[in-house]
Amino acid sequence: MENETTIFGIRAIIEAVKSGKTIDKVFLQKGLHGDLFKELENLIRSESINSSYVPVEKLNRLTRGNHQGAVAQISPIAFHDIDELVMSVLQSDKTPLFLFGAIVRTAECTGVNGIIIQKKGGAPINGDTIKTSAGAIFKIPICKVDHIKDAVFHMQSSGIKVIAATEKAENYLYDVSFKEPCAIIMGSEGRGINPSVLKVVDDKAKLPILGEIESLNVSVACGAFLYEAVRQRS
Amino acid sequence: MENETTIFGIRAIIEAVKSGKTIDKVFLQKGLHGDLFKELENLIRSESINSSYVPVEKLNRLTRGNHQGAVAQISPIAFHDIDELVMSVLQSDKTPLFLFGAIVRTAECTGVNGIIIQKKGGAPINGDTIKTSAGAIFKIPICKVDHIKDAVFHMQSSGIKVIAATEKAENYLYDVSFKEPCAIIMGSEGRGINPSVLKVVDDKAKLPILGEIESLNVSVACGAFLYEAVRQRS
Repeated sequence: MENETTIFGIRAIIEAVKSGKTIDKVFLQKGLHGDLFKELENLIRSESINSSYVPVEKLNRLTRGNHQGAVAQISPIAFHDIDELVMSVLQSDKTPLFLFGAIVRTAECTGVNGIIIQKKGGAPINGDTIKTSAGAIFKIPICKVDHIKDAVFHMQSSGIKVIAATEKAENYLYDVSFKEPCAIIMGSEGRGINPSVLKVVDDKAKLPILGEIESLNVSVACGAFLYEAVRQRS
Repeated sequence: MENETTIFGIRAIIEAVKSGKTIDKVFLQKGLHGDLFKELENLIRSESINSSYVPVEKLNRLTRGNHQGAVAQISPIAFHDIDELVMSVLQSDKTPLFLFGAIVRTAECTGVNGIIIQKKGGAPINGDTIKTSAGAIFKIPICKVDHIKDAVFHMQSSGIKVIAATEKAENYLYDVSFKEPCAIIMGSEGRGINPSVLKVVDDKAKLPILGEIESLNVSVACGAFLYEAVRQRS
């Protein structure tokens, strides 16, 4: 499955990181040592790059090249800097609407100005993601951040209200205002939003659940929130 | 992949149909003849049962039993009669809300009283469908009809307004009332709603599309419509 978004070799990966390329994930060979390998490990840590230690067979499947125990997947899209994105949206004539969560296609259709996802733990942006997004991934700016909480503080200090979509809310989304500049945080299906993030948001809102199963797909829930924002703003 | 929902043998399938079992699909062996086989073919036609002609190898994979050229998949859920369902909802204290389209989980969460799908062409209800629906499929009545258009007429003659979700609408969903008894028709992704059905609906509504890709996932679109109905009724 080697393609133009895969690079290999310790030195090559170090150079790619230093040159500012967006690395989705680095696969490192289990049990490897050496100065150069250590340098790469330190760089991965300092840059908060997604990585995992795997058996050499996995690396051999990822590339037929001489990988020296390291293979990296480069993202096919360029990620945006959150400071610059927030600034440019604030300077435009739009009322800012940001989304924390990788629901790209719906976000593009509802005029979201930018998507924020966490660097670690997130799924890599690959061919499947692009196909699922119906190309939306190239139309909407995406920011990868180290910590969601820091991004929330950043939004708030820029005058953007942060609203969490959570069943732990008292208000329904219809009672919350999305008219002012705001960002909506969607949790991951099953786990929801991190409690430490929930503590710092400006508002919480839930969807009415009228049935018995009480389990809505996160994409569908996100669509309901974003279209409520569209309705209030129209 | 043989399980309790698979039956085989021409006579057995004829009996299953006659006894009122809900058949998802019948697989018939290509090029087979004979009186009993013809009887089954006629029954399939008169009952509008989903069927397809396949090579014998496909049948051998579906069952290890002596299939005689016919294997049927029985639906694990019981389907409802549309007349009875509409009647019982009208007699309850609920304001009827029906959905034409197999978006079961979201429908259950938004209090939809029943789902209508077409017999032919629809995906069979199998283990995957049940898993995707998070069990909602057992909580919400589902009707299979021969023709969507007839079901639309049936709704209308019972005082239920039929609203089509289509980009060919002039009004946005926010300008259409979902407060009275109504049914929402979702089209299939890509093909949309059949034009002959669009001609007979009471109202049409579209979602605002603010981005460039102009392509929303049908589940997400359905969620936005159903939650607009919930909002207007709350």
